Amino acid sequence: DSKLRIFALNSNKPLAQKIADAVGVPLGKTSVDRFSDGEIRINIEESIRGCDIFIVQSTSAPVNDNLMELLIMIDALRRASAHTINVVIPYYGYARQDRKARSREPITAKLVADMLQKAGAQRVIALDLHAAQIQGFFDIPVDHLMGAPLIADYFITKGIDKDAVVVSPDHGGVTRARKLAEFLKAPIAIIDKRRPKANVAEIMNIIGSVKGKKCILIDDMIDTAGTITLAAQALMDAGATEVYASATHPVLSGPAIERIEKSPIKELVVTDSIKLPKEKQIDKLVQISVGPIIGDAIKRIHENKPVSPLFKQRFH
Amino acid sequence: DSKLRIFALNSNKPLAQKIADAVGVPLGKTSVDRFSDGEIRINIEESIRGCDIFIVQSTSAPVNDNLMELLIMIDALRRASAHTINVVIPYYGYARQDRKARSREPITAKLVADMLQKAGAQRVIALDLHAAQIQGFFDIPVDHLMGAPLIADYFITKGIDKDAVVVSPDHGGVTRARKLAEFLKAPIAIIDKRRPKANVAEIMNIIGSVKGKKCILIDDMIDTAGTITLAAQALMDAGATEVYASATHPVLSGPAIERIEKSPIKELVVTDSIKLPKEKQIDKLVQISVGPIIGDAIKRIHENKPVSPLFKQRFH
Ligand SMILES: Nc1ncnc2c1ncn2[C@@H]1O[C@H](COP(=O)(O)O)[C@@H](O)[C@H]1O
Ligand SMILES: Nc1ncnc2c1ncn2[C@@H]1O[C@H](COP(=O)(O)O)[C@@H](O)[C@H]1O
Repeated sequence: DSKLRIFALNSNKPLAQKIADAVGVPLGKTSVDRFSDGEIRINIEESIRGCDIFIVQSTSAPVNDNLMELLIMIDALRRASAHTINVVIPYYGYARQDRKARSREPITAKLVADMLQKAGAQRVIALDLHAAQIQGFFDIPVDHLMGAPLIADYFITKGIDKDAVVVSPDHGGVTRARKLAEFLKAPIAIIDKRRPKANVAEIMNIIGSVKGKKCILIDDMIDTAGTITLAAQALMDAGATEVYASATHPVLSGPAIERIEKSPIKELVVTDSIKLPKEKQIDKLVQISVGPIIGDAIKRIHENKPVSPLFKQRFH
Repeated sequence: DSKLRIFALNSNKPLAQKIADAVGVPLGKTSVDRFSDGEIRINIEESIRGCDIFIVQSTSAPVNDNLMELLIMIDALRRASAHTINVVIPYYGYARQDRKARSREPITAKLVADMLQKAGAQRVIALDLHAAQIQGFFDIPVDHLMGAPLIADYFITKGIDKDAVVVSPDHGGVTRARKLAEFLKAPIAIIDKRRPKANVAEIMNIIGSVKGKKCILIDDMIDTAGTITLAAQALMDAGATEVYASATHPVLSGPAIERIEKSPIKELVVTDSIKLPKEKQIDKLVQISVGPIIGDAIKRIHENKPVSPLFKQRFH
């Protein structure tokens, strides 16, 4: 029966600490810093021989640095005779490059999967992957968790589920919206964007009834927040009483924060899959921790039990 | 007979252009930039189906970004049906992490080799690898070129080879010093650093005669320039008339430029394996282009001929 060890790299130490707390073990001793020329230097400061290792690292920005930290850590652990190497990737970077949308495009999400496996990862724990197909990029077990039950919990606790409708900001996200709607026992609506002709502004067509309702927009990630803030305005224009937005991953790059501040979105509910700098922790933003559900998954995996069905992705 | 195409990524476009000029082809059309969240976006703007591709990329700082650009480009080219994918890595980053010097260290130089091959690289052209053993990290052909003949040429043209002695800054670099000395028909000397006891300054012991001579220090790379500038001072103290320094790779991180400016080094002769920002192009620094020798190697590889023996690494 091998010992469980959790290691945090640099992308999201607060979440790693919450995961370790949920599991009930201290974080492993390690330092991950830089040589003078910027190359990553890793020091694992305790023996890990024969241990079951869980490394916590989101490949959020700076994505290339965070990914390389993870790959180098896996290499070091493998060479140090870890029993198993499990990687916890709360936010999986490059997930949107998951297919060739045009000629001569890379499929970087698959490249990353290959790199992780080649380095020595034996299992992946992921959260709301941009596309469920990314699981198939791996030849090792992938535990695919979902944040929707936590987000639903938040809205229920706050009473926001009453008279609410869950809205998908595009037709690609309907499955996700339906899942949240099930938890909230709410109906769904869909925003159907159409560009009548090139260089003409998109028309936001709302399928479903939102008039006089609280709207809860849901997406997997919010990056520049263009889609979600336009959707929020369209919902208000269509007679919604309040608009909430939710997403698992707060990427929030470029103009995102400014757009959200200016938008009619009342609250943006996200998880802590990505650590946010102070200036992005605005009043409208509520961050719910996935530490407990990831911690629970780690305990179950270590005990050879299946991951809790409530937080596991199912597709139907 | 497939067409030859040379693509430049972002680390060293001036060198890539010189290589393309030497080969006599234009650089392939591509743009490599960033999405809003910092993820790498690659656009290959011409068909490369059935072509022999040479990608030029040094994995110098920012090493992780440059490495990921290279891996993603290889992925895109492979999926776009390139005939062969050859990677030209004038400066191979992470080369100093080539062995476990202590417990639980990664061997990142091997990890990088694995990543390149897994992505789809079929051949590597490298220049003065920190350790020749790195060739063995690859299961694909590695053409290992050397800069010493170019550096020797420079010193000969300037007449600096007269009354000169080639000095290795440490006992690990003697083979390299001997090679340059052969080209210059000069004797060698070695600096033998010793620390008499812990927390006592190192003693620089010079093996060989340098009094009244021009000294030419040689190393594979100059990073923070600590070793080379101390060595230069020790040589002056031992009666050298002038001290020159040379290295293939001008890493020049942290205090390097300041140390070189303050040191008795008269000239620092390096190659353009790493692109230097303006502020590092100081008067003392002479940069010789490896464009022609890499271009020549590419032409020979494309024509299925062996690489020129003058610029090929040999170990004896
Ligand atoms: N980091 C990124 N930021 C913005 N767009 C991206 C990024 N990575 C990939 N894409 C593009 O997003 C599209 C895929 O998004 P989706 O349709 O939501 O799966 C593709 O056209 C990609 O070129
Ligand atoms: N980027 C780097 N900067 C400084 N030292 C490094 C770097 N990468 C590896 N090292 C260390 O340099 C030593 C190897 O250098 P060498 O003895 O010259 O091969 C090892 O102890 C490494 O820990």
